[in-house]
Amino acid sequence: MSGLARLSVNQMTVKQLSIPELVEGCLELGVPGVGLWREPVRSYGLEATARLVREAGLAVTTLCRGGFLTALDPAERARALDDNRAAVDEAATLGTDTLVLVSGGLPPGSKDLHGARERIADALGELGPYAASRGVRLAVEPLHPMYAADRCVVSTLTQALDLAERFPADQVGVTVDTYHLWWDDTAPAQIARAGAGGRIHGFQLADWVTPLPEGVLVGRGQLGDGSVDFRAWRGLVEAAGYTGPVEVELFNEKLWARDGREVLAETVARFSEHAG
Amino acid sequence: MSGLARLSVNQMTVKQLSIPELVEGCLELGVPGVGLWREPVRSYGLEATARLVREAGLAVTTLCRGGFLTALDPAERARALDDNRAAVDEAATLGTDTLVLVSGGLPPGSKDLHGARERIADALGELGPYAASRGVRLAVEPLHPMYAADRCVVSTLTQALDLAERFPADQVGVTVDTYHLWWDDTAPAQIARAGAGGRIHGFQLADWVTPLPEGVLVGRGQLGDGSVDFRAWRGLVEAAGYTGPVEVELFNEKLWARDGREVLAETVARFSEHAG
Repeated sequence: MSGLARLSVNQMTVKQLSIPELVEGCLELGVPGVGLWREPVRSYGLEATARLVREAGLAVTTLCRGGFLTALDPAERARALDDNRAAVDEAATLGTDTLVLVSGGLPPGSKDLHGARERIADALGELGPYAASRGVRLAVEPLHPMYAADRCVVSTLTQALDLAERFPADQVGVTVDTYHLWWDDTAPAQIARAGAGGRIHGFQLADWVTPLPEGVLVGRGQLGDGSVDFRAWRGLVEAAGYTGPVEVELFNEKLWARDGREVLAETVARFSEHAG
Repeated sequence: MSGLARLSVNQMTVKQLSIPELVEGCLELGVPGVGLWREPVRSYGLEATARLVREAGLAVTTLCRGGFLTALDPAERARALDDNRAAVDEAATLGTDTLVLVSGGLPPGSKDLHGARERIADALGELGPYAASRGVRLAVEPLHPMYAADRCVVSTLTQALDLAERFPADQVGVTVDTYHLWWDDTAPAQIARAGAGGRIHGFQLADWVTPLPEGVLVGRGQLGDGSVDFRAWRGLVEAAGYTGPVEVELFNEKLWARDGREVLAETVARFSEHAG
């Protein structure tokens, strides 16, 4: 078995590539899986994307993303639930069993993190059975605490599991992403907890590099450029029983400014060097 | 007793003010305490600063900052310990009993957070008795996890207390800063733990506002501009038995670009409105 057998490259890592270019590049380099995002898939066409990756024999490891489930306004909440059901349908069409959820930040003017997390739980209760009926699992992703206000009130794996465990594991689990969790000395025990419950629904890699850029969204480092010990984290999820894809998801303006095929090849090489 | 009786304004909040301007402004507005930083104190003169604040009747609630105790290189480590002893001496001269510690990030090339934290513990073992002999307490400040790589490997109150509790409480305690801890649902229980042990050596306020600026150092929000519920946090430390100063410490380029006296007055008003 190749050292790349479990590698997946999330398309945001090389968002300058079109979907056909991404597929062709993965085939050339021996990358067996891709993670996809809804917006570029919609631009290229949902059915066309599904056909292309299926005929290429690529696995779609995740669809990003559902979520944003913290609205207080009933109409906004209803729209979010509709949008998440659409995302589930898209995931099913693309042939992936995992929809990643970025849960949402605080509504404007609110300071109530606990209340926001409870609204996420309510939404998971509605969406979980719908997702499972289509063969899709929801993967709540804890995001780094620096996103707690404006993007995701779920900041730790403990919080994500406290939400997920209210529902069956084939409905709701978690995404373990090194970029968000690398600093947290309580994460290893929570990975064991997640694995024991069969709730590690996704595993993503990105390195932590500083200084952070304005807005802190597009500074995720190429593997090996930062502070994350990827072999240690891979060891933790595997010790917890995880045997699924290992997905590299970088958001990085410097990488996006370069030739996408070159970045894809570099990503494969760095994966082998640091996480393979 | 005035609603400002426990207010302290950290000088970084209005770093555009000279030390005499800061002192004069505090007297005019009825602010009874200031937090000071080593560099501006050194520029104005240590003895001159000590005399000025003493004659004005202002309390010096904290000196910022010691720390940076994670070096692997023995010579660098020895220099850091010397510098921290000097900071203790300066704190004693200024008449404050609290030296805030920013513990330090990962050494270049290192990915070993645990090892870095253990080196901090070793250093606290050397510095604690020295500080106590001069009537100064070390206050380990957990910094937001976004600083874990380059500034402070101590990211949570749990970690700070795990370090502090290896030593007597009159040597080592913690600083509770809302900016760093506001997102953490485990912090309330840790505040109770810290209070029970007599280890809340400092309590600082800043609001969380987004988007974060490049480098994420100078975006701490004025009280009331962001996501932090200050009355709730003040309630937590007081329920834990804390009766000390409540210090407003903002690092914010927009505030620094304004008239310092105006910002000082605004800070006092916001304190009364949101945290008094």
